Amino acid sequence: MSIELSPALQAALKDGLDLIPAIAQDAKTGEVLMLAYMNRESLALTIESGRATYWSRSRGELWEKGLTSGHTQKVLSIALDCDGDALLLKVEQSGPACHTGEGSCFHNPIELNKP
Amino acid sequence: MSIELSPALQAALKDGLDLIPAIAQDAKTGEVLMLAYMNRESLALTIESGRATYWSRSRGELWEKGLTSGHTQKVLSIALDCDGDALLLKVEQSGPACHTGEGSCFHNPIELNKP
Repeated sequence: MSIELSPALQAALKDGLDLIPAIAQDAKTGEVLMLAYMNRESLALTIESGRATYWSRSRGELWEKGLTSGHTQKVLSIALDCDGDALLLKVEQSGPACHTGEGSCFHNPIELNKP
Repeated sequence: MSIELSPALQAALKDGLDLIPAIAQDAKTGEVLMLAYMNRESLALTIESGRATYWSRSRGELWEKGLTSGHTQKVLSIALDCDGDALLLKVEQSGPACHTGEGSCFHNPIELNKP
């Protein structure tokens, strides 16, 4: 089955953008869980199914989040940013979002210089 | 003045990554404000100054957020993700984050298909 974006959404995405960074945020807590990439097919699948589906750059394939781990993301809303080149997904995350077992992938603090 | 990242942080960033997507999140409300890009110099400047500084891909130059608009971002924390290729900044945003005047750049909802 081939699945495509609506013409309106195609037009809203920045021209020539193949991979769109997509931020997954926990809809309940507001925690930012991860950043992954979507191509247009994975975005169309996500819109259609309500399950977050990304493009795995390392494996070069569609990646429905949680299909092997069980740590799925039910998508409650999607927003496109002002210049059409980034996505924000609000999700219901089952289990930890990160493959390390942490709740969020952003678990490595970088120390700021204190003035 | 040249400014560089610590060797530990250099090692933590994914090899060969020139531009790192950086998510700015309102530290108080949890709202995701924008996604922009940092090169290593802009990350080093952000760490040093505590003011979010990105790399403008369109202008090809360093971009201290709010330097012309006044809509600055004071950085309270930075975290690197599990595979070293994305950043999350928690910020105190002055005024709207988006150049359109919206509070967040993610203000274009995409309709999901309802089952």
